Amino acid sequence: MKNPKVGIIMGSDSDLEVFAEAAKILEEFGVAYDMTVGSAHRAPARAQKYSSQARDRGIKVLIAGAGGAAHLAGVIAAHTTLPVIGLPVKAKSLDGLDSLLSTVQMPPGIPVITVGINSGKNAGLAAVQILAIGDKILADKLIDYKNKMADEVEIKGNKLSEIGYKKYLQDK
Amino acid sequence: MKNPKVGIIMGSDSDLEVFAEAAKILEEFGVAYDMTVGSAHRAPARAQKYSSQARDRGIKVLIAGAGGAAHLAGVIAAHTTLPVIGLPVKAKSLDGLDSLLSTVQMPPGIPVITVGINSGKNAGLAAVQILAIGDKILADKLIDYKNKMADEVEIKGNKLSEIGYKKYLQDK
Amino acid sequence: MKNPKVGIIMGSDSDLEVFAEAAKILEEFGVAYDMTVGSAHRAPARAQKYSSQARDRGIKVLIAGAGGAAHLAGVIAAHTTLPVIGLPVKAKSLDGLDSLLSTVQMPPGIPVITVGINSGKNAGLAAVQILAIGDKILADKLIDYKNKMADEVEIKGNKLSEIGYKKYLQDK
Amino acid sequence: MKNPKVGIIMGSDSDLEVFAEAAKILEEFGVAYDMTVGSAHRAPARAQKYSSQARDRGIKVLIAGAGGAAHLAGVIAAHTTLPVIGLPVKAKSLDGLDSLLSTVQMPPGIPVITVGINSGKNAGLAAVQILAIGDKILADKLIDYKNKMADEVEIKGNKLSEIGYKKYLQDK
Amino acid sequence: MKNPKVGIIMGSDSDLEVFAEAAKILEEFGVAYDMTVGSAHRAPARAQKYSSQARDRGIKVLIAGAGGAAHLAGVIAAHTTLPVIGLPVKAKSLDGLDSLLSTVQMPPGIPVITVGINSGKNAGLAAVQILAIGDKILADKLIDYKNKMADEVEIKGNKLSEIGYKKYLQDK
Amino acid sequence: MKNPKVGIIMGSDSDLEVFAEAAKILEEFGVAYDMTVGSAHRAPARAQKYSSQARDRGIKVLIAGAGGAAHLAGVIAAHTTLPVIGLPVKAKSLDGLDSLLSTVQMPPGIPVITVGINSGKNAGLAAVQILAIGDKILADKLIDYKNKMADEVEIKGNKLSEIGYKKYLQDK
Amino acid sequence: MKNPKVGIIMGSDSDLEVFAEAAKILEEFGVAYDMTVGSAHRAPARAQKYSSQARDRGIKVLIAGAGGAAHLAGVIAAHTTLPVIGLPVKAKSLDGLDSLLSTVQMPPGIPVITVGINSGKNAGLAAVQILAIGDKILADKLIDYKNKMADEVEIKGNKLSEIGYKKYLQDK
Amino acid sequence: MKNPKVGIIMGSDSDLEVFAEAAKILEEFGVAYDMTVGSAHRAPARAQKYSSQARDRGIKVLIAGAGGAAHLAGVIAAHTTLPVIGLPVKAKSLDGLDSLLSTVQMPPGIPVITVGINSGKNAGLAAVQILAIGDKILADKLIDYKNKMADEVEIKGNKLSEIGYKKYLQDK
Repeated sequence: MKNPKVGIIMGSDSDLEVFAEAAKILEEFGVAYDMTVGSAHRAPARAQKYSSQARDRGIKVLIAGAGGAAHLAGVIAAHTTLPVIGLPVKAKSLDGLDSLLSTVQMPPGIPVITVGINSGKNAGLAAVQILAIGDKILADKLIDYKNKMADEVEIKGNKLSEIGYKKYLQDK
Repeated sequence: MKNPKVGIIMGSDSDLEVFAEAAKILEEFGVAYDMTVGSAHRAPARAQKYSSQARDRGIKVLIAGAGGAAHLAGVIAAHTTLPVIGLPVKAKSLDGLDSLLSTVQMPPGIPVITVGINSGKNAGLAAVQILAIGDKILADKLIDYKNKMADEVEIKGNKLSEIGYKKYLQDK
Repeated sequence: MKNPKVGIIMGSDSDLEVFAEAAKILEEFGVAYDMTVGSAHRAPARAQKYSSQARDRGIKVLIAGAGGAAHLAGVIAAHTTLPVIGLPVKAKSLDGLDSLLSTVQMPPGIPVITVGINSGKNAGLAAVQILAIGDKILADKLIDYKNKMADEVEIKGNKLSEIGYKKYLQDK
Repeated sequence: MKNPKVGIIMGSDSDLEVFAEAAKILEEFGVAYDMTVGSAHRAPARAQKYSSQARDRGIKVLIAGAGGAAHLAGVIAAHTTLPVIGLPVKAKSLDGLDSLLSTVQMPPGIPVITVGINSGKNAGLAAVQILAIGDKILADKLIDYKNKMADEVEIKGNKLSEIGYKKYLQDK
Repeated sequence: MKNPKVGIIMGSDSDLEVFAEAAKILEEFGVAYDMTVGSAHRAPARAQKYSSQARDRGIKVLIAGAGGAAHLAGVIAAHTTLPVIGLPVKAKSLDGLDSLLSTVQMPPGIPVITVGINSGKNAGLAAVQILAIGDKILADKLIDYKNKMADEVEIKGNKLSEIGYKKYLQDK
Repeated sequence: MKNPKVGIIMGSDSDLEVFAEAAKILEEFGVAYDMTVGSAHRAPARAQKYSSQARDRGIKVLIAGAGGAAHLAGVIAAHTTLPVIGLPVKAKSLDGLDSLLSTVQMPPGIPVITVGINSGKNAGLAAVQILAIGDKILADKLIDYKNKMADEVEIKGNKLSEIGYKKYLQDK
Repeated sequence: MKNPKVGIIMGSDSDLEVFAEAAKILEEFGVAYDMTVGSAHRAPARAQKYSSQARDRGIKVLIAGAGGAAHLAGVIAAHTTLPVIGLPVKAKSLDGLDSLLSTVQMPPGIPVITVGINSGKNAGLAAVQILAIGDKILADKLIDYKNKMADEVEIKGNKLSEIGYKKYLQDK
Repeated sequence: MKNPKVGIIMGSDSDLEVFAEAAKILEEFGVAYDMTVGSAHRAPARAQKYSSQARDRGIKVLIAGAGGAAHLAGVIAAHTTLPVIGLPVKAKSLDGLDSLLSTVQMPPGIPVITVGINSGKNAGLAAVQILAIGDKILADKLIDYKNKMADEVEIKGNKLSEIGYKKYLQDK
């Protein structure tokens, strides 16, 4: 994509399905992004380069994350003053707790603004919200999106109230 | 303050010392803010009003948080499309774990971008980073701030290398 | 159902199987209920309306819950003085711990009386126990139910004592 | 007190300060209660007797709890069909987690409706909410109480907005 | 079996596979036992009766346990002075942590001597060790058992050393 | 003491206050014991010798424990067929969780029967219960002890019922 | 293998797949090793012998580990002054937390240098790093290995940037 | 010091007391070291430079660590092939769990060999053990050190056996 506004970097391509959810949201909102694999540990120069060049490439927000001792978001945040959205990815042990704590518990001075474990969608939405501050069209789209969510709950809620749980579960 | 750009809302005035750290950062960067007490549970109408009017009052970013079953940031996020920075506050039991999980583990559609437990300073910095996207002066200040942090570490690191831990601990 | 006494509201229709257990108990005890989907975050107006109108609609007890940063029960409790039974639902990470803590660790002034993770059945029974305070027939049914449970344990226990674990496991 | 409506039983007199918060709320609402020490483990006959006689003594709701492997609420629930509010008390290790899990994670059939760790106040309020179902005066008092809480937040919030955090912290 | 020395009681027949491991060990050592289902919550009278009559029936050691808020071992311990071996059973949430804490964290005065989560085999062996104090034949069998375990490790270890992990994994 | 029946071994003399509670109970019941410091890690030969000679010295039950990666009880259990009561001691981090898990989660074949974190008293009582299997006098003392505990709860419970929590808290 | 430099010992052959990852790395680097099954609990003499003879057999580094109350690495460390790399293995409960804490939280004086849960590969690499201190060829191989890892990330990252997540996920 | 063999780098000078324990051990063993403050986040260039130049400066082993989302050890490991000993430091929340998991749960390819929370002494000892592989004098000192530890336990253990816990606690 041309002129990406959001830069997405994940620790391993095994995290791609989680990060794809963020990309889908950005596409849905018409926000240009780029996306790559970095690694705070196996390819630190690449991660550092990606982060320190992001602002000059016109990137406004970064989404970064990994699993386990998930240092990528923190390392990305260390090399830029752009906002960094941390996306913790559940690894094979400890049910995501290590990834979450390694991402969110940053020391004073270097925030990583973190979404829930495996919440790629929310990482994308947070990026849109941040960009929407200076973009009226995006802000209006967010309002539509929010209203649509409320409407969907309304429809589901009304359906459940009317047909009851037995039928509802059969229809699923 | 006139024309606040950041709205800060905490669940109880017992959380004030943590949130004051965010305010101090905003002052240091010359960012106007307002600050109040709300409560998702004891004063839901107030929290809702604060959140739903924030955009029209010119607020660009919200900082919200509480302790325990810390719903305030989520409830604030439910009533606005502005970015909501979640600040979990350590309560009397469970060492902050309940506050963190209640703040960060938001469902798809409504992100709360969360900083570490009691990390008021990082909540403030994250707000500045977000505002700096569209504000060159703020962006430059962030670079200065980051450099100053690195310098301080440099000075401390060099001092420790030179005088050794015994003297360093005595000087503290 | 006409004149529901218990209002059941869940954060998402993906939680329905857990909440259906509560509904089944209410049906077994002949307690009228209604049931819907709300969301503290995606449809806050709906959740609020449901809660604040509950008393006037004749509802006596509410059952509410969700997964992850499970705010729904707390938000429901914020808008009513009816007792709110919290039902934490296990989400995809953290094995239910986030849902439980987000539901139970409420601040002073706004209790959510919480049952175990995914314990839809106990949420239903707790509602019946509360209604039974002013309803002799229901109270008697509860005693029967309790006796039947004890009898079932008695039968299973005696069977195991008699036939031994090998046969018992074969019969299962 | 004559004709108690709420029975309070705690596992040890070392838990008394937590349970006294429940009693204070009941007094504030004019609800008669009695209060005693039991122990699921050291005095099981006493706990059982207290629970099984509660209904006949006119008790409508029970509040029970302990620390550590906190079985008291579950044992009380085993001997009555009255609603049992569980109040987990933080013990010397594990920061209340053991008490909470031992109280709330009840098996199907025997609910303990649990409030937060050390939340004596909420245990009392939950009891009032349950009694208020059949008591218009109590229900009105609850509305007043809720409004008063909202007002207090309103006052604190407005004060903070006006005088700022520095003065507010000085006044504390 | 005649003249059982060990009494085994579990909270639900869904725990039977775990407790069967204890029974198998007792059979292997030729120790008579009986085995039943009780429930601290659904059948408290049965649990209490089982426990309080155990000594008079000649039982020397009890094995008891359940899942979730696992009170059974504690309740059994409350009604006897016999040693009670607690066997925590992993339930559907929290990966066994609730069961373990509810079983082991007993208050002063009423110990439950607890084995690992789902460790039916060790519950059985602990019972044998306790009985072996006053039974030379059993004590000798334990020494044989221990030696056999060491031998098995010896054989496996030597085999692995000799054939290497690739062959060893193929043979498995 | 002559002819000790219980051997107590702790990982460090910093654990002594916890283990002294076990010793006090043994003294109260007139059970001879010896007590020493061992260390699975710093003095493995000593720990091993203590354990492997225990039976021949007439020891019937061992009490062992430590803090952190608390291996002592497991190592003691590895070198004897006597029952080993594990006593996890809370260390400076993690609030006792590491000590508990390291003590109780033993592999199949080598049980450590574990009491609660820092529960020296219960370790002592468990040893008494085990010895009481073959000692009528000890068994009778246990019954007295249990009755006295129940009486104390009775007295405290009655006192609280009569004088109320305000006076009771003043008297404390 | 002749003249092994690394000794690998695991608590059970059920852990072999995890430890095989360490062996594969050693083979890849051309480091001779031997590998066996020991058990701190079931075969303590074997574990002790393996550890105390390791130095004299020319072993330079040990890799040891187990699951649950994972004492093996600690026990190995107790009998040698060689560096001991601890490899915690995830067992059936608690998602690896017990294994990790039992391995890493060693008391002062006896370190076990621990890698992540089930991280056999990293255990192997750590052993190579330690040996490479005195072995220029090994050190150079490590640099190549590190560069190759960075290159692989580079290739994956570039591929993802170019073809986008949809194609990338299809190719997987 | 001239020709340091061990490089110590900590995330903040607030961690110095923990790291000083490592330095004291190195001094005790006569191992030259240098020591500085770095920060993976606030001074990433410094941390990177320190790590990537370490080998050329003659450093053989690195000790690195921090608190919270403790990335320093991982970042140091990313820029060197020297062994990196991770030292997690307990921060103000979560009792050290976040620091431990962020340090130890490294991805495949980049090990951080981790000691216990706040275990500066063990970090120092692990460094000595690693250096002792190629240094006979150091290896002999380690054996002396180990023997001295065992002797100290022996003396304490014998003293406790002889004078009993009452006197021992008085003498402390």
